[in-house]
Amino acid sequence: METTQYFQKTGNDMWLTEDERDNLKISYRIKEVLYSEKSPFQHVMVLDSYDFGRMLVLDGVVQTTSSDGHIYNEMISHIPLSIHPNPEKVLIIGGGDCGVAREVCKYPNVKEIDMVEIDELVVKACKEYLPEVSGNLNDPRVNFLYIDGVQYAAEKENEYDIIIVDSSDPIGPAEQLFSKSFYSHLKKALKEDGLMVCQSQSPVFHLDVFKQSHAHLSSLFPIVKPYTAVVPTYPGGLWSFTIGSKKYENIHVQNFDKETKYVSQDLLEGCFKLPQFIEDAIK
Amino acid sequence: METTQYFQKTGNDMWLTEDERDNLKISYRIKEVLYSEKSPFQHVMVLDSYDFGRMLVLDGVVQTTSSDGHIYNEMISHIPLSIHPNPEKVLIIGGGDCGVAREVCKYPNVKEIDMVEIDELVVKACKEYLPEVSGNLNDPRVNFLYIDGVQYAAEKENEYDIIIVDSSDPIGPAEQLFSKSFYSHLKKALKEDGLMVCQSQSPVFHLDVFKQSHAHLSSLFPIVKPYTAVVPTYPGGLWSFTIGSKKYENIHVQNFDKETKYVSQDLLEGCFKLPQFIEDAIK
Repeated sequence: METTQYFQKTGNDMWLTEDERDNLKISYRIKEVLYSEKSPFQHVMVLDSYDFGRMLVLDGVVQTTSSDGHIYNEMISHIPLSIHPNPEKVLIIGGGDCGVAREVCKYPNVKEIDMVEIDELVVKACKEYLPEVSGNLNDPRVNFLYIDGVQYAAEKENEYDIIIVDSSDPIGPAEQLFSKSFYSHLKKALKEDGLMVCQSQSPVFHLDVFKQSHAHLSSLFPIVKPYTAVVPTYPGGLWSFTIGSKKYENIHVQNFDKETKYVSQDLLEGCFKLPQFIEDAIK
Repeated sequence: METTQYFQKTGNDMWLTEDERDNLKISYRIKEVLYSEKSPFQHVMVLDSYDFGRMLVLDGVVQTTSSDGHIYNEMISHIPLSIHPNPEKVLIIGGGDCGVAREVCKYPNVKEIDMVEIDELVVKACKEYLPEVSGNLNDPRVNFLYIDGVQYAAEKENEYDIIIVDSSDPIGPAEQLFSKSFYSHLKKALKEDGLMVCQSQSPVFHLDVFKQSHAHLSSLFPIVKPYTAVVPTYPGGLWSFTIGSKKYENIHVQNFDKETKYVSQDLLEGCFKLPQFIEDAIK
């Protein structure tokens, strides 16, 4: 367990400082390192923190936490599932913490969930050490595939009702998951009335990525709808998601009845009301 | 200029680390200290930072920045001003960075703006070193009063259409600005169809303060409406505001036409759509 590069000690306190940004650093006080292993793809840790409970940390960067991981996972799942009127077959690309699969399982109409995550170690770590996010997932509808999502999607045609791209940041292995060719493969993999959603990064710190995702999807899909949520452990708090849809446009749910902590009926509509600077960015 | 206690140096880099929280620290890389003086109330600094431009820092805690200060100031101003159909006399309590007064000045119907800020040094520093926030405010309708806002409000009756409480965190001098007796004085200072708004802290880190503000206002006003915005430099990103109104409840503006970067017509409605955990907190 070689983890010292990620931590600073002050007295008896241990801190994790994310160093992916040059001019802004966020430091979390840590109680304990619960898991730390190197996979072929990245360094995988589960830490117990004071303010946010247990956290999944990949290459030193916080990905999801017990205290606010549900916000991201609920928002990337329930919004598309409340637009598509009858989703039966869902593909999740990425989503190693299992939180997205957990939310999709709340829909009895969904018959099959293919979860394509390249790094099996992430799934293993989250199932064992991050049950607040992964939910100890053992729903038989979930089919775990530990392969490259880009290659997988390229080989599929007319198969899925909904595709959810739950990627990490567009550096390293996840970079391809933000490319136009990848999105065009997703379009092909979707049924003729299918829709996809991707996380499209922080509109504050990476407005360029958000704009690019919007431009890519706009060149492929007749309906493109960005929306936002607030994830406290992501820098800047504000996070964006973008839907690309072949046919369905509006929320059809009248009485949202899933058990959630962030998504509400009000929010299903409210999340599409964007601040002026985001509207301006995609004009 | 005694500022070393607030900064850390690493090589040639200077960092400001806020230390108001025990388990989460945010560090900003700083280019330059532009202003640093002690007032009778607090230590006032204006810093130039790499990621957020110039920042007002009080007792070592970032209050507002050139890059995102407009979000808070627009949201605490344009929402109440879009609910009250004809506001003529507005009271701002706090608001030393002048950003709120600047937004209120965008309404030609408003005839008088009393701005009661206890610390003249904050106004002076922001006017001189933070024009991106203060806007070099010299509108003759603004009446600057450098006195205690709590005492001022207690002496007023039936005078204001709108009162905006732009306070710092409820520790030290601003603590009284979150008390029920203060809110009851504001109620008295409002006209019979008046409304007030206060910042009610982070629903993530200070849900207790948010709930308390909501409870206080609910015991005083027939109409209470919380809403949220995302301010990237505030911890957790998500920030709450709460309106207490004697008569007016809904946004009456159909075509929002003020020049803003965050508030939009869509957002005037969208900001009231709350995440489930906030709804649950005030049920």
